Amino acid sequence: MKTVYITRRERFNAAHKLHREDWSDEKNLEVFGKCSNKNWHGHNYTIYVTVKGTPSKETGFVMNLKILSRILKEEIIEPLDHKNMNLDVPFMKGVIPTTENLAIKIWETIEARVKDSGGELVKIRIEETENNFVEYFGGKEPF
Amino acid sequence: MKTVYITRRERFNAAHKLHREDWSDEKNLEVFGKCSNKNWHGHNYTIYVTVKGTPSKETGFVMNLKILSRILKEEIIEPLDHKNMNLDVPFMKGVIPTTENLAIKIWETIEARVKDSGGELVKIRIEETENNFVEYFGGKEPF
Amino acid sequence: MKTVYITRRERFNAAHKLHREDWSDEKNLEVFGKCSNKNWHGHNYTIYVTVKGTPSKETGFVMNLKILSRILKEEIIEPLDHKNMNLDVPFMKGVIPTTENLAIKIWETIEARVKDSGGELVKIRIEETENNFVEYFGGKEPF
Amino acid sequence: MKTVYITRRERFNAAHKLHREDWSDEKNLEVFGKCSNKNWHGHNYTIYVTVKGTPSKETGFVMNLKILSRILKEEIIEPLDHKNMNLDVPFMKGVIPTTENLAIKIWETIEARVKDSGGELVKIRIEETENNFVEYFGGKEPF
Amino acid sequence: MKTVYITRRERFNAAHKLHREDWSDEKNLEVFGKCSNKNWHGHNYTIYVTVKGTPSKETGFVMNLKILSRILKEEIIEPLDHKNMNLDVPFMKGVIPTTENLAIKIWETIEARVKDSGGELVKIRIEETENNFVEYFGGKEPF
Amino acid sequence: MKTVYITRRERFNAAHKLHREDWSDEKNLEVFGKCSNKNWHGHNYTIYVTVKGTPSKETGFVMNLKILSRILKEEIIEPLDHKNMNLDVPFMKGVIPTTENLAIKIWETIEARVKDSGGELVKIRIEETENNFVEYFGGKEPF
Repeated sequence: MKTVYITRRERFNAAHKLHREDWSDEKNLEVFGKCSNKNWHGHNYTIYVTVKGTPSKETGFVMNLKILSRILKEEIIEPLDHKNMNLDVPFMKGVIPTTENLAIKIWETIEARVKDSGGELVKIRIEETENNFVEYFGGKEPF
Repeated sequence: MKTVYITRRERFNAAHKLHREDWSDEKNLEVFGKCSNKNWHGHNYTIYVTVKGTPSKETGFVMNLKILSRILKEEIIEPLDHKNMNLDVPFMKGVIPTTENLAIKIWETIEARVKDSGGELVKIRIEETENNFVEYFGGKEPF
Repeated sequence: MKTVYITRRERFNAAHKLHREDWSDEKNLEVFGKCSNKNWHGHNYTIYVTVKGTPSKETGFVMNLKILSRILKEEIIEPLDHKNMNLDVPFMKGVIPTTENLAIKIWETIEARVKDSGGELVKIRIEETENNFVEYFGGKEPF
Repeated sequence: MKTVYITRRERFNAAHKLHREDWSDEKNLEVFGKCSNKNWHGHNYTIYVTVKGTPSKETGFVMNLKILSRILKEEIIEPLDHKNMNLDVPFMKGVIPTTENLAIKIWETIEARVKDSGGELVKIRIEETENNFVEYFGGKEPF
Repeated sequence: MKTVYITRRERFNAAHKLHREDWSDEKNLEVFGKCSNKNWHGHNYTIYVTVKGTPSKETGFVMNLKILSRILKEEIIEPLDHKNMNLDVPFMKGVIPTTENLAIKIWETIEARVKDSGGELVKIRIEETENNFVEYFGGKEPF
Repeated sequence: MKTVYITRRERFNAAHKLHREDWSDEKNLEVFGKCSNKNWHGHNYTIYVTVKGTPSKETGFVMNLKILSRILKEEIIEPLDHKNMNLDVPFMKGVIPTTENLAIKIWETIEARVKDSGGELVKIRIEETENNFVEYFGGKEPF
């Protein structure tokens, strides 16, 4: 069985802030630094979604990337692109919008639909700036 | 006279929206598209500032990049990084925060101080996404 | 008058070969090297199209990038993406598909329509590989 | 034992199409989309080859990258660069040239020779566009 | 338990040479090639440090990146940036400064302090040029 | 006359320091900062060389890039790659090896040979780090 991993990259631009209402401004600033700015800030996020499987003898595909891309556009890009993560995004309600939490929530949002399309979701990587990124394997710890 | 052009790159992350209060939501959407989202969105902005001059015989420098970088940090990065362009940035007050206007306003903000430090500002380039960028030469039209 | 330059990036993937029918295989190989391979090869091309103008007081835009992007998609990406430059692309008929000629032909294809949309085309840049790119200013020589 | 992973990047430009002769044009278009264009299209492929081992006490090397690079140039770049994957490449005969199949076939082509040179091949990554890439671990499933 | 992996990128510029005093110049050249140049050469090194953990319910962070970045600046960037790896860097004494050895030594230098700050170091990746990089998992072999 | 600009990228890795023997260590540190480190440091330099001309009717080329690349390899990469700019490079003798001076000296080194090969050298761009680069137009001032 020749398992191959395929990855699709998508991008979105969003506003957010890291700020707890139940904390003082001082504590927010101390913990979250500049990310606690009350009037928001934003990023160009880049997301890589990886699916594994055996290439089909008929098509040579692990999964048709058109289908994976459509899932990502509908489930991730539509709700997040040019939006405010704290206010506008249903699956981020009640969660501090760190890149860590974003990765977990996106996984939960797309895992079943990827499976229904014949793929097995194995990794989500989100880059917030050129210096910081997060990887999530559905809770598994490959290393 | 051997004129050389030196460029310093800096980066900042900010929120903004393109939205006129005196327009209906429909018109804002029609003209500004997703950028008109009321709850803001944001970007990782990359800025390149170019100065020209003749390398000093003593140092080989057109201008000490430490000084240029300090000017950019104080005049651009401090006011813009992790801020909301529409609400938080003094030099963007009363201006629609397109990348075009941002480039013009940054030029006006730093030109004199660069000159006082012995440099001649000749170009500002701002990248908003990997697909869109703007260049401003102080109004000049080199091409 | 505050002239600003805006640039839109688009990408396409195409096959081509550099090969003259009226030359021997030896001469083709000598002049065009590996690019003369009879069965074609291909590239991920990246194109940057630059338009200049004065930002509108009403919108802050030199030109609405949605409109520029639509022109580029219809006039450049549709005819070239996943195509063979020597066989499939009407505006490349009768021309050796070097990056130089490609830039000139794309300029001729889009210049009028960009003008009709209120922009002034001033530069086309095409990257063929990470080591080679071409710039065309409509025949002008800015430097 | 301090196992370290070293990776060498190489690049090649090739033409291909995803097209089954035993399918109608409609079915090819439906499954393979624009990639089924009869007259080919092409890409700048980037390949990363990873070898693991313990750094030699004498040299500090897991494997001399000059040797790894020579293997890659002879076994991968020579047969693929500026070639047509469907027509010109012996080890791709009879296989639909998806990136998945390309990764598997390259693994089979170089694994033994890397081993003879003292390295252990553990991963091949191939980028077809900036949005799509494939990883192959010889059939293993690290995550 | 939702384990997430976070990565911080840092950069430094350093000189080095690969050269054994107990070997002849010929042998040094044969094994280390151009890297054996007696008068040194140098690189822009990029380092990615990955830590794993469960995002805190209170902050959404696996680990505060400000703290990780401070550790990296003090333990890696300060001793290495604008330095000579063979002569100036205490933790590289007595080791041939290959990228493999550099990764192992950096791991040993920062592992305990990362742990004291509540993180678990799991991966170091160092890029020496755009064509060569090394990954080290503390001796573990995830693939 | 349809003038087109073609650019070839090359890369080299070199050591250098910015340090005047006739200055005290304090003054060197004050002016040149970390770059004055006595034991050298180094960079991955990227150089872009631009030539302008009219595409040949016979070949579609402004200039055969194989020829330009050979000139750059012999005149720039050979003398600089894996070398010490202060000690090993004939054309940098007696000059402080800033990126500004490097660009001027490379221009003087290759201009005539590019002309003899039928090209007209118009621009050299050298990137020292991802944050700093220099452009030189032979002393001309296009903007």
